[in-house]
Amino acid sequence: MKLDLDKIVETVKTYLPQKKESFIGLHEPIFNGNEWTYVKECLDTGWVSSAGKYVDRFEEMLAEYTGTKRAVAVVNGTAALHICLKAVDVRSGDEVLVPALTFVATANAVSHCGAVPHFVDSEAKTLGMDPGKLALYLQEIAELKADGCFNKLTGRRIKAVVPMHTFGHPVDMDRLLEVCERYKLELVEDAAESLGSYYKGRHTGNFGKVAALSFNGNKTITTGGGGAVLTNDPEMGKLIKHLATTAKVPHRWEYFHDRVGYNYRMPNINAALGCAQLEQLPRFLRQKRSLAERYQRAFSSVEGVSVFTEPDFARSNYWLNVLLLDEKYKGERNRLLEHFLDNHIGVRPVWTLLHKLPPYQNCPCMELSAAEMLESRIINLPSSAFLEMELAEYDV
Amino acid sequence: MKLDLDKIVETVKTYLPQKKESFIGLHEPIFNGNEWTYVKECLDTGWVSSAGKYVDRFEEMLAEYTGTKRAVAVVNGTAALHICLKAVDVRSGDEVLVPALTFVATANAVSHCGAVPHFVDSEAKTLGMDPGKLALYLQEIAELKADGCFNKLTGRRIKAVVPMHTFGHPVDMDRLLEVCERYKLELVEDAAESLGSYYKGRHTGNFGKVAALSFNGNKTITTGGGGAVLTNDPEMGKLIKHLATTAKVPHRWEYFHDRVGYNYRMPNINAALGCAQLEQLPRFLRQKRSLAERYQRAFSSVEGVSVFTEPDFARSNYWLNVLLLDEKYKGERNRLLEHFLDNHIGVRPVWTLLHKLPPYQNCPCMELSAAEMLESRIINLPSSAFLEMELAEYDV
Repeated sequence: MKLDLDKIVETVKTYLPQKKESFIGLHEPIFNGNEWTYVKECLDTGWVSSAGKYVDRFEEMLAEYTGTKRAVAVVNGTAALHICLKAVDVRSGDEVLVPALTFVATANAVSHCGAVPHFVDSEAKTLGMDPGKLALYLQEIAELKADGCFNKLTGRRIKAVVPMHTFGHPVDMDRLLEVCERYKLELVEDAAESLGSYYKGRHTGNFGKVAALSFNGNKTITTGGGGAVLTNDPEMGKLIKHLATTAKVPHRWEYFHDRVGYNYRMPNINAALGCAQLEQLPRFLRQKRSLAERYQRAFSSVEGVSVFTEPDFARSNYWLNVLLLDEKYKGERNRLLEHFLDNHIGVRPVWTLLHKLPPYQNCPCMELSAAEMLESRIINLPSSAFLEMELAEYDV
Repeated sequence: MKLDLDKIVETVKTYLPQKKESFIGLHEPIFNGNEWTYVKECLDTGWVSSAGKYVDRFEEMLAEYTGTKRAVAVVNGTAALHICLKAVDVRSGDEVLVPALTFVATANAVSHCGAVPHFVDSEAKTLGMDPGKLALYLQEIAELKADGCFNKLTGRRIKAVVPMHTFGHPVDMDRLLEVCERYKLELVEDAAESLGSYYKGRHTGNFGKVAALSFNGNKTITTGGGGAVLTNDPEMGKLIKHLATTAKVPHRWEYFHDRVGYNYRMPNINAALGCAQLEQLPRFLRQKRSLAERYQRAFSSVEGVSVFTEPDFARSNYWLNVLLLDEKYKGERNRLLEHFLDNHIGVRPVWTLLHKLPPYQNCPCMELSAAEMLESRIINLPSSAFLEMELAEYDV
């Protein structure tokens, strides 16, 4: 039996705003709150750059919202993750365990430390790193020494594990934390996609020493471009702020820098946008959850596909909705993508698995069958919060 | 004879707007043009992030203004310089010649490549790298081999030279280019401070393969935080744009990245600010030049100090005005700084020479007597373009 591509596309069309004639994007921001007011204030006062009250306010709001002790705003999610890895002392020549199924930035941040990404398989239940499979794998290849965990095959130190909460769905953290403890690995959360997502009632980004957020234009909230580092360790928070600037030692006039800094500071004008967006996050999350439920209902009766739902231990932000092809239809993915796009509906596949990319094809990796399977079956559907708002008007 | 600190501070006070009761900053931006119109358009259309017409427009305007073939907008000057160094293939373990007298970002960008900054002395005429002294030094320590220039003392390859146009005053490029040619060194211009500065009629940033600009809040024009890479080589321009993004290969839906990218893209909202600021640059430059002339006149009759003027081959942007203490008064610098600040006048010394900073104190360096001398004698004076505007009202 062939997959009914028309029916799938029509199902999405029915559940998207009718009045929208043009292309429906995958995820677009909306500025309905205090964005103008705050941004205009930056311009009027001349405070647009790295100093300014919105940076401080945005950092405080983020810490409060996520329930972490400290947030440091930076230029983007890649920069946030790079600083996270530096903060837990990932060094040139180390290996860092990352999912093969993630956006390329996860591995790039490892590369930017001069370290080597080591790819881990995912599990179907969460779309994220598989802790059970990782444990079995490490049992085989890892060796614990006084100065850390080493890869027996490459001789390199394995310093950290970076789970990424795919499309906002939390990784199974308890099981992963157990593995990290057993092998003395630093846990760094790539929470770029999971602002507003909770694991067992606790916001993602609270489970390792440090975590990275992203506020790129396609994220649940945006600052234009931006990211943040979260930590519950105040000392580490200070270090991160220091590294994310130019590592200048405070002084009335002297320019003295005691470390190599990264100059990853978020400008005040972008933080102003962030404050206004964060004020609206609870509403965005309600709208996105409601849109996800619409998709789930709509596709419950469509043959050959299903809509991914959050793991039972999680409350997800449903950043990007996932249409999952049944295994037998995985060969249809590309045709379905084309059919959606031909109908002006912004969809995308999941990322090409990272171990297949030229810069990473010679990096170590475990057996990746679950990630391979997911790669062949995932299509992301339009997921902007404002779609739900427009839908609600029509009460579809 | 002691330096008359009161007289110096009073001289500056006389030449600064009288109505300003509060602290007078060193360099503050002014948003009098189309900033709000353009930024508001970003918010209204939802195009705030890495795609959007202002990024393209800002890049085109920058290329046209500087007379280069291509400009790529990035998150800040450090990022711009990092990409420049990557683009000319600076590798981990290489040495890169940089001035000791520069902002720490020049050396940090070298560090971010895993390379080692190697510090060069400055000359009093330009405040920048001394090409004559560099030539003599390389004659002593450098060895040319088939695969490049090597430091005989460290065994490391010396890959590039990074002159920085201090406070907007161009380095003597003809003489430096000669040295680069003789020793097969890549020339990378750190033009972070020199937008609007010309060497022999040609805009700075045109002399090496690549150059870096900065639009930090304290610069002649600002994008909040931002920078750009300039190049006259279209192929290199493409490579730089590719590296400055996530190195994604264009495709209707596939996520395929063929290099390790840096995700240094300038957001559209910051580029919108940049477009509006760049439109006003000619006026800012006139105002800054006029302010510099006021300072020069005012201090021509004050004992013990002089105001630095552009080298005869240059037309400088006078980003930050330089009050130069006579050599015999160099011991007074810190007292004079304090006296200015106590009088609510924003001044600063030049940067602590980089070879004295903890992260760089073990890096190779040549004899640095000119830089040492300049460090002890330079005080920057308030230099905002709008000061001149306010002064003109009073016709001081």
